[in-house]
Amino acid sequence: MDDLVQRFLNGERRALARVISRVENQTAEGREYLRALFPHSGKAHTIGVTGGAGAGKSTLTGALAAEYRRRGHTVGIVAVDPSSPFSHGAILGDRIRMQDLALDPGVYVRSMASRGALGGLAPTIDDVVSVMDAFGFDYVLIETVGAGQDEVEVAGTALTTILVNNPGTGDDIQAMKAGIIEIADVLVVNKADHPGADILVSQLQALLSLAPAGSRRPAIVKTTAIKGEGLDRVADAVAEHRQYLETSGQLAEQRGIDARHQVLAIARAILLERIRQGTPEAELNALVERVANRELDPHTAAEALAAAVTA
Amino acid sequence: MDDLVQRFLNGERRALARVISRVENQTAEGREYLRALFPHSGKAHTIGVTGGAGAGKSTLTGALAAEYRRRGHTVGIVAVDPSSPFSHGAILGDRIRMQDLALDPGVYVRSMASRGALGGLAPTIDDVVSVMDAFGFDYVLIETVGAGQDEVEVAGTALTTILVNNPGTGDDIQAMKAGIIEIADVLVVNKADHPGADILVSQLQALLSLAPAGSRRPAIVKTTAIKGEGLDRVADAVAEHRQYLETSGQLAEQRGIDARHQVLAIARAILLERIRQGTPEAELNALVERVANRELDPHTAAEALAAAVTA
Repeated sequence: MDDLVQRFLNGERRALARVISRVENQTAEGREYLRALFPHSGKAHTIGVTGGAGAGKSTLTGALAAEYRRRGHTVGIVAVDPSSPFSHGAILGDRIRMQDLALDPGVYVRSMASRGALGGLAPTIDDVVSVMDAFGFDYVLIETVGAGQDEVEVAGTALTTILVNNPGTGDDIQAMKAGIIEIADVLVVNKADHPGADILVSQLQALLSLAPAGSRRPAIVKTTAIKGEGLDRVADAVAEHRQYLETSGQLAEQRGIDARHQVLAIARAILLERIRQGTPEAELNALVERVANRELDPHTAAEALAAAVTA
Repeated sequence: MDDLVQRFLNGERRALARVISRVENQTAEGREYLRALFPHSGKAHTIGVTGGAGAGKSTLTGALAAEYRRRGHTVGIVAVDPSSPFSHGAILGDRIRMQDLALDPGVYVRSMASRGALGGLAPTIDDVVSVMDAFGFDYVLIETVGAGQDEVEVAGTALTTILVNNPGTGDDIQAMKAGIIEIADVLVVNKADHPGADILVSQLQALLSLAPAGSRRPAIVKTTAIKGEGLDRVADAVAEHRQYLETSGQLAEQRGIDARHQVLAIARAILLERIRQGTPEAELNALVERVANRELDPHTAAEALAAAVTA
């Protein structure tokens, strides 16, 4: 193990891949690696890229990675969506090719299966981000699926959240109203060549004007990610947000919130696993059957399970 | 309490509203009500209505409720999306008015806040559905937010899942590929007057043709929910699915899966609550701070928390 850790810390990509696999598999060995490497993390700037299906998250993530490479930075990418083009190296456009990124030694792409069975980002996503951070990437981009509450989830794992909006569908404005805008630090209007792009920008500006006085207004940036256009301004907006986090003291605060969120999520997973281990399968089945037959309500059944593993 | 339960079982709507409030608040009293009423549940047919933002879930839910009313059935509606028009009684179209539904004694609408802080449908949604079921509604419709994994969640709480698709955006086909189609029992192509509707139907048919041999093919139904068109065929498709569940023996199987899912989700919530109660706030803060400062990895911190509450 010490040997692999040493090779990891020396910057060997194969060591990185092996460590991530072990961490992802959630074995005891994987946790040992995380324990050893976690103190090396905390230097990367982590960026969540989120938005509705079809908004162009993958393309934007790839194009932003290319922009950071032009600026001389290294980039780790965690693609959480199993349907992401990152999962199968698809060519996304004329100028942004996943293959180029895949061959670039300053970029590392990892595609992950989606969330745990009972919802919520699986704790391993945070762990993989921590491992990439510890490896020394300047930026770690986390591309996540779908609209809705998923975006609130990713906000807990990234210092800057980019919300990618798609002109013309009206979906995003609806999502905004549901409070998602509160978690976006940078608003990207992708497909800027779409006739609805300027209307969407106006709508977003109008929405932002409703924000409470004194609160930070996220930047709105138009991009055509598939042509690589506008990414310089996205990178600038991320840098401005980072600067804001540091000068306002929110960086330390947010790291504390993230750590709390992460620790409690893992503790919950551990306890659920203890229930599974602590309850004989026949006993669990008997309880579940009584609930299915409406003889026992689910809360009483759950209390019985919880009692079996807690002091 | 016995008095309120009796009035609930007598069909008093005010008693229903009061019981739901208590159950939603997750108090010990609420759980007592659930315990008393749960044995009366299990008769309603539960229907999850899901799909991407802007697909017309709310309109379809309202129009389907109106269709069931025309057929002489009673309907409970649980709207999980806080941005749902159900939350503020908005007029959705010329023919479907939420006000009409709100004034109809055979319909009860309850809007709920969205999911728990750490993701996943809050256990109370299942509980509210159980209470509506126990009250005696023939159908309970559950309208849920957003695209992505949310749809997989709702599948656990409803016997029939309707996936509402929106022609023209291409979003849905993308969602389909991510495996969501596996949980849809009825596929609705809403906005049938949209020029892309027939293309979307063809695409869905092509996707369904890829399903493994012997598996049930979900029905595809075109609707224009805002005009109340096509809802008779949606109701027929739901009835066919119910018939299929009964004759194939899957109804009992699915009830067992749902019960297991629900019991484990509640047990997990109980254990998380025990962590919060069992760990002094100062101790939790100290652990979290060490994680935030990268001195301690989150798994080791979570293990310490879990150890404090388990035997």
